[in-house]
Amino acid sequence: MHIANGMYGLILVEPKEGLPKVDKEYYVMQGDFYTKGKYGEAGLQPFSMEKAIREDADYVVFNGSVGALTGDNALTADVGDTVRLFVGNGGPNLVSSFHVIGEIFDRVFTEGGWGAPNTNVQTTLVPAGGSVMVEFKLDTEGTFILVDHSIFRAFNKGAIGMLKAGGGDKDLNMEIYSGKTDDRIYQPEGGAIQEIPQASNKPAPAANKVERITRGETKYKAVCMACHQGDGMGVPNAFPPLAKSDYLNGSKEKSISAVVHGLSGEVTVNGNKFNSIMPKLDLSDEDVANVLTYVYSKWDNNGSEVTPEEVKAVRALDVKAPDGGH
Amino acid sequence: MHIANGMYGLILVEPKEGLPKVDKEYYVMQGDFYTKGKYGEAGLQPFSMEKAIREDADYVVFNGSVGALTGDNALTADVGDTVRLFVGNGGPNLVSSFHVIGEIFDRVFTEGGWGAPNTNVQTTLVPAGGSVMVEFKLDTEGTFILVDHSIFRAFNKGAIGMLKAGGGDKDLNMEIYSGKTDDRIYQPEGGAIQEIPQASNKPAPAANKVERITRGETKYKAVCMACHQGDGMGVPNAFPPLAKSDYLNGSKEKSISAVVHGLSGEVTVNGNKFNSIMPKLDLSDEDVANVLTYVYSKWDNNGSEVTPEEVKAVRALDVKAPDGGH
Amino acid sequence: MHIANGMYGLILVEPKEGLPKVDKEYYVMQGDFYTKGKYGEAGLQPFSMEKAIREDADYVVFNGSVGALTGDNALTADVGDTVRLFVGNGGPNLVSSFHVIGEIFDRVFTEGGWGAPNTNVQTTLVPAGGSVMVEFKLDTEGTFILVDHSIFRAFNKGAIGMLKAGGGDKDLNMEIYSGKTDDRIYQPEGGAIQEIPQASNKPAPAANKVERITRGETKYKAVCMACHQGDGMGVPNAFPPLAKSDYLNGSKEKSISAVVHGLSGEVTVNGNKFNSIMPKLDLSDEDVANVLTYVYSKWDNNGSEVTPEEVKAVRALDVKAPDGGH
Repeated sequence: MHIANGMYGLILVEPKEGLPKVDKEYYVMQGDFYTKGKYGEAGLQPFSMEKAIREDADYVVFNGSVGALTGDNALTADVGDTVRLFVGNGGPNLVSSFHVIGEIFDRVFTEGGWGAPNTNVQTTLVPAGGSVMVEFKLDTEGTFILVDHSIFRAFNKGAIGMLKAGGGDKDLNMEIYSGKTDDRIYQPEGGAIQEIPQASNKPAPAANKVERITRGETKYKAVCMACHQGDGMGVPNAFPPLAKSDYLNGSKEKSISAVVHGLSGEVTVNGNKFNSIMPKLDLSDEDVANVLTYVYSKWDNNGSEVTPEEVKAVRALDVKAPDGGH
Repeated sequence: MHIANGMYGLILVEPKEGLPKVDKEYYVMQGDFYTKGKYGEAGLQPFSMEKAIREDADYVVFNGSVGALTGDNALTADVGDTVRLFVGNGGPNLVSSFHVIGEIFDRVFTEGGWGAPNTNVQTTLVPAGGSVMVEFKLDTEGTFILVDHSIFRAFNKGAIGMLKAGGGDKDLNMEIYSGKTDDRIYQPEGGAIQEIPQASNKPAPAANKVERITRGETKYKAVCMACHQGDGMGVPNAFPPLAKSDYLNGSKEKSISAVVHGLSGEVTVNGNKFNSIMPKLDLSDEDVANVLTYVYSKWDNNGSEVTPEEVKAVRALDVKAPDGGH
Repeated sequence: MHIANGMYGLILVEPKEGLPKVDKEYYVMQGDFYTKGKYGEAGLQPFSMEKAIREDADYVVFNGSVGALTGDNALTADVGDTVRLFVGNGGPNLVSSFHVIGEIFDRVFTEGGWGAPNTNVQTTLVPAGGSVMVEFKLDTEGTFILVDHSIFRAFNKGAIGMLKAGGGDKDLNMEIYSGKTDDRIYQPEGGAIQEIPQASNKPAPAANKVERITRGETKYKAVCMACHQGDGMGVPNAFPPLAKSDYLNGSKEKSISAVVHGLSGEVTVNGNKFNSIMPKLDLSDEDVANVLTYVYSKWDNNGSEVTPEEVKAVRALDVKAPDGGH
């Protein structure tokens, strides 16, 4: 918990002979913070252990606060400089996808190790409680943006920094650079939830049995097929067949109940015993009606239609699972 | 937010001399999506900024949609082929554990870099906003399954793809391969929550003081020991002792209150002053009764039993924290 | 889902000539578990698919259970030993930041591959469904703590192990080691939510217009500037200007409404048409009052003050978005 309260930092252990000379070296330390209040809420914010345990950070920042490396606090360098960043990640929880918008890392000392560096990398991972060393030569002027490329951490939680590379009188490599920059992008958006006002796109309920079957097929493939298989044959000794099933064709109520309340204990289908578990599925009445109507329409089943009203009725019976509580 | 809406893609920068020739090259781009509705909910789904900020994705997909690389859309190759996958991860948030079920990567160009490749890797990380290049030779026929091995993203959110390797008349390496395949596994399970109907396993309340002490010891080790230590001696100047404690033995009510309401400000225990903070603990009445009964039974304390009813009574007093609100 | 229920393990494939000899080899397998009940809740716990899909683990453990590698179950070695850990991560979901507190890995075979090892690494990532091999020489005695350095998984969910290195009669390297150890740290804290009792720190509402403007400026920079720009000029054809805006100066109500209810469809501002979307913002009445008062005070606007009461009134009008539901 000391880390969650901000106890972290980098210790650089250089080889005896030192590191190769570069033009600029900077220290960038990422950390995630968990507060009672939301991002940007005013006042001294107590630590939220609940959010920390869920790894649901309010702030993700470089060097200890939102804006520590932006605007007047930006890192600086000149065109032609080779820049070395020592990047640490105190966590406590999050793994960083460290990236500098506008640059490719010429060399990455992965996870802060001293093995042969990787080269020409756009984004490198920094473990929680880990580090990385990256180097790159600035080929042109501009404002380069440091981010954790888990990008909502950058634009909405603070994990954004700037490296301003001035031109001076050096070669700006105009063949790779238009000379135009636009500061109106890459601004923090803040953490306030934005919601787009718009009309509902919820589709109308299925208008007829054909529509029900079509929609049910999609749902079947997404939810049921993994166990009951694409041909409805199930898997012997594990998942009962839905094809030509005496269980299904014998009772719509039992079929609906199996989906909305689940099923456990021994069942016999087409003469074979199964002692597996059918989980109850969190589907709407409409979806259950569609998927069962689809199943009834296939594989020599009896072609019944199941309506949302029938599902609703069976759901209300609530053949309570023994624990009652869930 | 442009990334969250799907603005991403891969740009391949080859070395001047080109990459070594392989038999098949494919492009696989992972992305995570956040929608108002749940996975599989019908209709045009608006973007959910709230979920994006919590990094709670509804869909995680390859090449833009569920099923873009499965069934008829599967990647293809022949036995004996060397396959190269350019794998990108647009995020916006998630780091991918990229894996191909049934294969080991012969070469991994970690994080898309051009350093010496790693070899014989089963799963490699792809940063959000990053990439990787992997190569492998298909030693036998079969359907190989591409996944983000954060596996609920694969089977329940869409991050699943297929590479079908046909046999042709080539050597199938039958010494390492039975020749049998089963298509009934590795099907998507969909995102519908499955719940197993089952009896409650909640244990009955402790039947007597001995049981209370036994259970309380487990809870003590899990929750209290970090500060108050295994011998109940606490830590001088930081965490008060529970052993032979005049504070505890003086009042059950005060002891219960310290656990359920927390404690701040100066307290004196066995003649020593402490000005630390005892957090209030989110434990049930039963758990508080057990853990305190355990503490009273140990280290020359007075052997009191604390009951859930006593805890409930003290909890109801609600010595409200000054802010009242939390 | 078989992984979520614990189906995982490591298979070590050695090169034909075997691995170089070391003094101790251990197998450490991380896994995350999702239960209906909270961490530490008694009784047999059913699997929670809902939490698994949210990747919100209750337990993160080494070798299958909390405490499998601590106390009497600690790994052991002697000073001077070279230790090799085969570290696997079964997931199903989480990427591990594997670290041994008190040690630096001399060699890391990244992601379990057989490429040239990285050296001198403090923390290395283990993908979900992946592995790593690390080696280190024990330079001194002590208890070294294995963790997933996403540290709330370690101290609050179980991802903690111990390697006890006994001294024997070997050189303890007293020049780098004081010879003192303290077992009172690095104890699990358990998963019970701790809450610090404390006074509210919520600031009083702005006392006057000047304070409102000051606070509004902060909020503007955090929430509005990304689109409307630091100079209030907006972006042509995309985001309307707030500077000298006939729209704003014409009606406080319409301005408040745009913030609290959002805006879509065509609007005309200073003679230019915009057909973009203004998202509704999840801000308090006080924050909306402050930020609008700031905007009115700047860039040749009419200097109006907006109060929280006015915001409240407009919010209550609830110009419902067409779908009504969100």
